[in-house]
Amino acid sequence: MFVVGQEAAWALALRQGDRRALAKAITLTESTRADHRAQADVLLNKVLPSTGASLRLGISGVPGVGKSTFIEALGVRLIDQGHRVAVLAVDPSSAVSGGSILGDKTRMERLSVLPQAFIRPSPAAGNLGGVAEKTREAILLCEAAGFDIVVVETVGVGQSEIAVASMTDLFVLLQLPNAGDDLQAIKKGVMESADVVVVNKADIDADAATRALAQLTSTVRLLGLSARTSADPESHGPKVLALSALKDQGLDAFWSVVQSTVEARKRSGAFAVRRQGQARAWMWDLVHAQLHQAFHAHPNIRSALPGTLAGVDAAQEAPSAAARRLMQLFFTPRN
Amino acid sequence: MFVVGQEAAWALALRQGDRRALAKAITLTESTRADHRAQADVLLNKVLPSTGASLRLGISGVPGVGKSTFIEALGVRLIDQGHRVAVLAVDPSSAVSGGSILGDKTRMERLSVLPQAFIRPSPAAGNLGGVAEKTREAILLCEAAGFDIVVVETVGVGQSEIAVASMTDLFVLLQLPNAGDDLQAIKKGVMESADVVVVNKADIDADAATRALAQLTSTVRLLGLSARTSADPESHGPKVLALSALKDQGLDAFWSVVQSTVEARKRSGAFAVRRQGQARAWMWDLVHAQLHQAFHAHPNIRSALPGTLAGVDAAQEAPSAAARRLMQLFFTPRN
Repeated sequence: MFVVGQEAAWALALRQGDRRALAKAITLTESTRADHRAQADVLLNKVLPSTGASLRLGISGVPGVGKSTFIEALGVRLIDQGHRVAVLAVDPSSAVSGGSILGDKTRMERLSVLPQAFIRPSPAAGNLGGVAEKTREAILLCEAAGFDIVVVETVGVGQSEIAVASMTDLFVLLQLPNAGDDLQAIKKGVMESADVVVVNKADIDADAATRALAQLTSTVRLLGLSARTSADPESHGPKVLALSALKDQGLDAFWSVVQSTVEARKRSGAFAVRRQGQARAWMWDLVHAQLHQAFHAHPNIRSALPGTLAGVDAAQEAPSAAARRLMQLFFTPRN
Repeated sequence: MFVVGQEAAWALALRQGDRRALAKAITLTESTRADHRAQADVLLNKVLPSTGASLRLGISGVPGVGKSTFIEALGVRLIDQGHRVAVLAVDPSSAVSGGSILGDKTRMERLSVLPQAFIRPSPAAGNLGGVAEKTREAILLCEAAGFDIVVVETVGVGQSEIAVASMTDLFVLLQLPNAGDDLQAIKKGVMESADVVVVNKADIDADAATRALAQLTSTVRLLGLSARTSADPESHGPKVLALSALKDQGLDAFWSVVQSTVEARKRSGAFAVRRQGQARAWMWDLVHAQLHQAFHAHPNIRSALPGTLAGVDAAQEAPSAAARRLMQLFFTPRN
């Protein structure tokens, strides 16, 4: 499957939109084998000139908010309009649960049978950082394969939303039409990352949806979010709107908001600034994660750490002195 | 001034409450010289058994809220009751401005002349992390010198408040009696770190103070903060109260809230849990900061980084591949 030296042929198949080559490439990036990892880097750098042209759309919301229905209705509609749509997922619980997002094959049946769609469940890495990194690479590979809309889905459980917002151009938060959810969003600080807040399932209770809209709009004002996007003169805090993905109502209005926001940001330069910032932040995240990994894997640290922590807990050693002692152990050459 | 080998005599003077020895010891921790740093570690570890017995009180608020007046009124009162009070400051801008907090010698005139008080301006380190570390060490030294109340003051400008909350037992947020400030506090997420919110200057406009109290109480509820301190059954979100430090009104009620909160936390064990968590977090903060420092100081990284960043910015190299390449350069033995 992974033959060294065939990256050029592989990259070609990928750029021609071959979904099987794309699926295999993503599997390669998810491998824990060092040789696969090295090969994935070669492949990634090879296709990199063909990446970046998509709109990266992050979508989040609590379980039951209707993410799948929303993404499917939107995806089918966009494919009708001539787009190619990839759907990825970031599920921090996937390592434990075996993947709860997009893992169920019966989900998005209408979308998944279309040749212009590509759907991939969350990678099952050991932690959110690992899942996020694989997903960032999958975005690039989908773009190389010609998908011009890449949707990244996550569940509304805090940190994973921040991660998805940090790898997408636009972050959409789905809300249920009842009180309480918006407060939850404030508490988690997720509202500050949202570019569009959508009250889904507005068909179930129109009055509740109207109330939710009013509440969300006032929350946005309360949080003083208008000042947040000063780099982007066209966008003052998240846009708020209600729709019903199930009844296929309001999706056009949603897409108009997405398009006008993206166009305004491209005009102002904020779009490119965000992309560049995300690329650098991704690199630094990895550097820091790998530094910490190397630290904890060092034999000197592994043997000294339990006693050091016990000493700090018991206030027998000052934390600052303990840190300096550990650093000396880390930089002592191994025998 | 700093003679190697005299740490034992120094530690003794410190433990006897000698304010000159304390001031010198803090200066030693603030030195950038490696030998001073090593000596400071010896001294810190020597006095460590005499630390930890104080109440560490964080106090924050925007400029003009009356922090100095509040701390002075409280400090004089506590000394009247037999306490010894140290006042430290964390000013992230001190490196640039030369220290705006506690830097003015004319501030806290009544408190500063008392022999049971010790007042120290913010260390002028290069960044918030550096300032925070020095202040954490100064807290330990003050405790060793027998100060049983250590007040750490900071300005209400975001990150420094989080830092002070992370090094104190109780975090107090001072507010002005007008609308707007509370909203600012929500935005910065500082409200979630506050144990007590004090509306100061209540004498100026009693109606405004009453409105501010009501608004803050509703904000606390809105943020759903009752669930925040589940480890501490006695405290459900910050306590909110109004007073006038200038007129010396309400300080007894404030101190009652502080004492009952501390007692409840000591009974539930939350007090010790927070202290232990802070000590470990402090150690890890330093380890991570020193790892990053070592990374950036490595000659291979220094020569490769500018080109690498340019490649990532121009999308010529995938951020993940760039990170892996940098890590290889970092762990290549120097010639």
